[in-house]
Order: sequence, then C-alpha cells, then structure tokens
Amino acid sequence: MGKVTRLICMKCGKSYDSCDHLVCPDCGLDGIFEVEYDYDQMRKSLDENPLRSRTEPSLFRYTDMLPVSQAPPGLLKSGWTPLYTFPRLNQAVGHECIYLKDDTVNPSGSLKDRASAVAISMAIEGGNPAIACASTGNAASSLAVLAASAGLNSYIFVPEKIPHAKLYQIGACAAGVFRVKGTYEDAFDVATEAIKRWGWYNRNCAINPYLVEGKKTCALEIFEQLDYNVPDWLVVSVGDGCIISGQWKAFRELKLLGQTSKLPRMLAVQASGCKPIVDACNASCDVSPVEACTIADSIRCGTPRNWRKAVKAVGDSGGAGVSVSDDEIIAAMLLLGRKAGIFAEPAGAAGFAGARKAIEEGIIGRDESVAVLVTGSGLKDPTSLEGAVEIADIPASVESVADYL
Amino acid sequence: MGKVTRLICMKCGKSYDSCDHLVCPDCGLDGIFEVEYDYDQMRKSLDENPLRSRTEPSLFRYTDMLPVSQAPPGLLKSGWTPLYTFPRLNQAVGHECIYLKDDTVNPSGSLKDRASAVAISMAIEGGNPAIACASTGNAASSLAVLAASAGLNSYIFVPEKIPHAKLYQIGACAAGVFRVKGTYEDAFDVATEAIKRWGWYNRNCAINPYLVEGKKTCALEIFEQLDYNVPDWLVVSVGDGCIISGQWKAFRELKLLGQTSKLPRMLAVQASGCKPIVDACNASCDVSPVEACTIADSIRCGTPRNWRKAVKAVGDSGGAGVSVSDDEIIAAMLLLGRKAGIFAEPAGAAGFAGARKAIEEGIIGRDESVAVLVTGSGLKDPTSLEGAVEIADIPASVESVADYL
Repeated sequence: MGKVTRLICMKCGKSYDSCDHLVCPDCGLDGIFEVEYDYDQMRKSLDENPLRSRTEPSLFRYTDMLPVSQAPPGLLKSGWTPLYTFPRLNQAVGHECIYLKDDTVNPSGSLKDRASAVAISMAIEGGNPAIACASTGNAASSLAVLAASAGLNSYIFVPEKIPHAKLYQIGACAAGVFRVKGTYEDAFDVATEAIKRWGWYNRNCAINPYLVEGKKTCALEIFEQLDYNVPDWLVVSVGDGCIISGQWKAFRELKLLGQTSKLPRMLAVQASGCKPIVDACNASCDVSPVEACTIADSIRCGTPRNWRKAVKAVGDSGGAGVSVSDDEIIAAMLLLGRKAGIFAEPAGAAGFAGARKAIEEGIIGRDESVAVLVTGSGLKDPTSLEGAVEIADIPASVESVADYL
Repeated sequence: MGKVTRLICMKCGKSYDSCDHLVCPDCGLDGIFEVEYDYDQMRKSLDENPLRSRTEPSLFRYTDMLPVSQAPPGLLKSGWTPLYTFPRLNQAVGHECIYLKDDTVNPSGSLKDRASAVAISMAIEGGNPAIACASTGNAASSLAVLAASAGLNSYIFVPEKIPHAKLYQIGACAAGVFRVKGTYEDAFDVATEAIKRWGWYNRNCAINPYLVEGKKTCALEIFEQLDYNVPDWLVVSVGDGCIISGQWKAFRELKLLGQTSKLPRMLAVQASGCKPIVDACNASCDVSPVEACTIADSIRCGTPRNWRKAVKAVGDSGGAGVSVSDDEIIAAMLLLGRKAGIFAEPAGAAGFAGARKAIEEGIIGRDESVAVLVTGSGLKDPTSLEGAVEIADIPASVESVADYL
C-alpha cells in the first residue's frame, strides 16, 4: 500500500494532510484533489520488489503504488490486460508500430474496472457496506459487477439515455439502479446528494481522486509490456478527463521513482460533437460546458468535472488534442475489427480514430512509437454499427453465396 | 505440438492414420472423429516441461497437448481465464464450494475462442488463407474476431435469429457474413457446401474433431487452478455436445498421462425446451432431433451433431443430465450477477442453473466439489433480462431515491 501523504487541490493549490475529503473544502466540486504519496517509501518498495519480479496478473501487482493494501476477497481480476500490435493495422494507417492496450477484456468489459477495483477496496478497507456512482454506463456497470463479486452493495445512477447492454449488465448485478430523468449531469447531482445522505462510498471518478490511482495502472502495465520503455505518444479518448489524468500521473511517478527518464506526449481525443477539453487544450483556457452530441456515449460528457488534470496532462507533456467525427469513430471501429479483431465501443475506438488523424496530420511522426488505449468493448453498444456493417441476407442455397462473392 | 497418431470414428469405430479427413469417409457427417495422440511422446514432454513450470498466460501453454505447434502472430490471447469461488453464492445455493470458470473474459466473450484459436492455427499451419463456420453466434463471433487478429479471412454463416450484439461483432470483424433464411441447421448446410466449393478451412466444431482439442484446454486449466486436483463434478451447458466432450477428453488424457488418478463426473445441462442430449443420456439411447425453443440461443440446437461424444462423456463418467427451464436460467443469470458479479448470457448461466438443480435434487452431494463452466458473456444477449431486472425510473430528485429505498 502506498502511503498517501497529501491531497492537493487542482484549483487553488492548497494541500491537505487529512485524507477524509474527496474535494477541496474551499473550492467544492471544482476543487478536485491530486493524491501524493511518500515517494521515498515507494522507491524503497520498488527496490525491494522490482516491477520485473512481480507475478500477480491483475492491477494489484502495483499495490505499493496505490492507496489500498490488497485485493478484497472474491473481487474479479481486473487489469494486466494484453498490449498488442498488428502489422495489417499498422499498414492500414501508414505507421510503423501502433500498440493497442486492450482493456475490453476486463471483467465488465472496460477500463473503468481499474478505478472500481480501487474504490471497492477503499470502501471495504474503510468499513463502508455500500458504494454508489453516477455514470453514462461503463463506470456504473463496472461498479455493479465488481462490487457484487466482493460482496458490497452498489447503488447506481444512470441517465435516461443509456445503451441496453450496459443497463441490463448493471441491473443484473447492482443492489439498486436509478434511471434518472435527464442528462448525466442530472444523474450526477442526484447521486451526489444521495451519497451524502446515506453515507455510501462515493465512486464518482470525476471527483474522487483515488480512482485516478486505479486508472494509472493501465500506463504502468504499458511501461512493463514495452519492456520498461515509455512510448513517444500515449493516446486516450477523453470524457470527464480522469483516464488521461491517470495515465499521465503514472508516467510522472515512474520518472519520479527513477524507473524511467522519459515521459510520453499525451494525445487527448474527443468526439467533434463534444470536445470541451480538446478546445481548452488548444486554446489554453478553462473548459466551458457544451451541449454534447455524439454516438460515443462513454465520452459524451458536456460538463467534464475533472478537466483541470486532463488539460494539464496535455499541456505539461507537450501533447495535443484532436477531435474526431462520429463517422471517423465508426471507421475506426471497423478498422479495429477487421485488422485487429478488437471489437470496441465508439468511445473505445475514438482513441484509435484520433491516433489515425494525428498521424495523418503530422502531429504524431511516422517513426514515433504510439500506444493507444482501447477503453471499452463493442458488446456494450453494438447497435452503433447498425447500417455500417455489411450483412448478406441470403436464401438457404450455396448459389447465393457464389453470387455474393 | 502433440503428434496426432489416429482419428477414430465415434460411430463405426474405424480408425484412420491420415489426418486429412474431418469426418469418417464411410459414415459421413454422422461419423465424427476423436483425435488420438502419441501419448508416450506427450508424457515425455510433460516430464521435461511440467505443467507447474509453465508461464504462458493463454491456452498455448498446452501446445504439446494440442494438434498445433504455436500461436500464430497477432492472434488475440484466449484461455487461461480465472477460476473463482464466491462465499455468498455458495451460501445462496447451500453448497460448500462451487468453482466458476469465467470464460466470459475471453477476447470475443466466450469459451468458443479456445476452439477458434486452434482452428485458426491449423488453417494457417496448413496454408489456407480463409476459414468459415456456421453458428448461432458465439462460434461465429469468436472466429471472426480471432481470424481478423491473425490476418485470416473469415466467412460466417448465421441463422436468421441471432442476437444483435453477436451479429454486429461478427460484422465488424469478418470478411463476409451470410445471414441464411432459416434455422441453424440451414445455415450449417449452406456453410458445409460453401466450404467444400471454395476450399476454406472448416471451423464447424460440430464436425471438425480438432476443435474439441481447443475446448479441452478449459479443463486443463481448471485442473491446474485447483492445484492439480480434479473436481468431483464438472458441469457444462450442452448444445452440439462439443464443449462437454472436450472437457471429458482433457481429464481422460490427464489420467492417461499420469497427472491424476481421478476422473470427474460430468453433468450435462440443457434447456427444457431443447434437451435431446439430456434425454439420450437419461434413456441411454441415440439422440432424436427436436424442435428447439429456449432463450438460451447458444445451446438452442435441436439437431446436435456431436452428440455421441457428449452422451459417452456423461455415461462413462458416471455423470448425469439435467434440464432447466428458461425461468431457472434467468434466475441463475441474476444470482451469478448479484452474488458473483459475473454477467453471463443465458447459455452461459445454464450450467450454473443445472448445478443448482442437481444440488437440490441430491444428484450432486453437498460435500462434493463442483466446477461450473460459465461459457459466454451476458453482453452478447443482454435483452434476455428484459423485464427480469428491476430498474427504478425516477425524476431528478433525491427524495425519489428515499421513496424507493
């Protein structure tokens, strides 16, 4: 378990020793913290137990870099997902080597399992019998699934518009599911009040700073899987801004801990119909809320709560922000399917769509190494491909096959 | 690579040295083979490289027990899935210890990836540029996904009735998708003809005996994960009969190879609306085709092709067959969700439903160890839970949450 020493408000910069808060008492929901550890202790732990010697095939291989002491009994195995490269896919986008981090194979089918695993561990270690969140889907299904495995009750708040697959996955596992009339922001507000009233552990990643810690394990794994090297670029699809923040923190900590001297450049990818963070990155200004409109429901977040960390990650890393249209996202889904066999949901493929665009536009050099997060499974939102895939409807005769071929 | 020495027809008993055939030249589609290896060579290989020393985290840790020499480059990692036990789930069914083999986390979301991985390896090693199958969904999506990752073209034949998630997953990855007017059997017949005409590699598990070899890796893993022990019962949901055959073969081979002296009893589970193999097991007779009717589409197979091996597995192991209603399957899906966080499709939960029934009926003793295969993800067919899960539709106010709680 990493010893948390300070929480620093990303808005006002004030730091707190106590770890009781989730947000800055002065700044409220706007003042999301960053978690700081005793890095001397962490360095010592890494000396005694080097990354190369670790064998645990889940994100709990990094317990000494996380705010939790162990995996709760029963908790489904999350993380330690494969990193692939596919020659035919590289060829299709005219790049030497793109690595895909396949987080679709996590227990609930998305990267969010990494954050849920840490949240559930913290809730259990803190003695809280229940946990809750608001989510457009992946965080919610992840929480419902993992909490059930660890014997914790989960209360889930979802907006009206949520793909069926996610809704039923949540419904099958959660202790309570509330479909709130309105947007994600409405669901978020009701969840925040309910969490306060009933004392549930708050798994709203947008404000709970410890969840970014779970997400950072994805980058730690990429570092290990690239044989302890850092890629030139790390590409992440962005909604609330938490995933990209987690990746950037992982690399900064690896550097701080003497594991590497290099940092990657971060590419933030958003959908054209919902790109407040990309706009803020490119204009070097604060985020302004937008009306969100995109098929990529997992990053359809017009009022991102954790934007400060995301914008800072892009800026500090010398990175960039790009936006991709829904058509480009669908094209990326098909390319990932046909050339890599990875079936991603729209938000899961958006990162790859953005990488492709950044390569075409010369933002990413053709000789620069690129790792792309594939954040969620296409099984969560398969109808987004309706009309985009070719299905041959034929009578039961082989001649019809011949006609088609 | 295991050296295949003979193929034995399960119908007439004739054996063949040549491995060119998929079915017995005398018996046709009715004469499905069983694959025999040079077990002296295999024993030697296991002596030199014991199971305990192996580290490959996929089914290719068993290459010396399979008809293939290695994983093709790029092929997504299948197998080496977790084996869990959940105290709250055990309690709910009044049993000491049920182990769940979670094959929902395979790349395409089902156990079928094990068979596809072997089929694709054989096609590539045989120099065939294309591969095809007919399937009610899981085998098809598995083949499309894995073939794409290995750079092989796949042609997929599906029946009219197929859940959307599976259809789009296939459509995103396959080189060609044919939706055949009619039943699974119609799709199977057209696929068989097309495979013959165009010379594609035949991944129809129902007849290709090498695919059972891929499926057997699931039982090999369970043996390792139980610390080199065999459970008293292995519970498998049954459609065509291939999965249960593969599991039984794995244990028989482990015994033959001196790895264990014990064999498990096999419990075959089918849906009440489609139970030709369970009926044949209980009446000790041949299988008669039935009109299939169940929500469990992955085992909705009224004319099972590989029934001989399945019936023999149950009989030879001193096992049993049980059938479960659609309501019992849905109850099992919810129990797996709520108490284990495992979201299974109906056929994936049918095994657990059957285990529960067999425990209640005293077929499985309360002190006997039980391993249950969870064969496919609920994300593949989430609407089967429509009406079965409770969703609270509320306005955006915390008071509505209070009312509900």
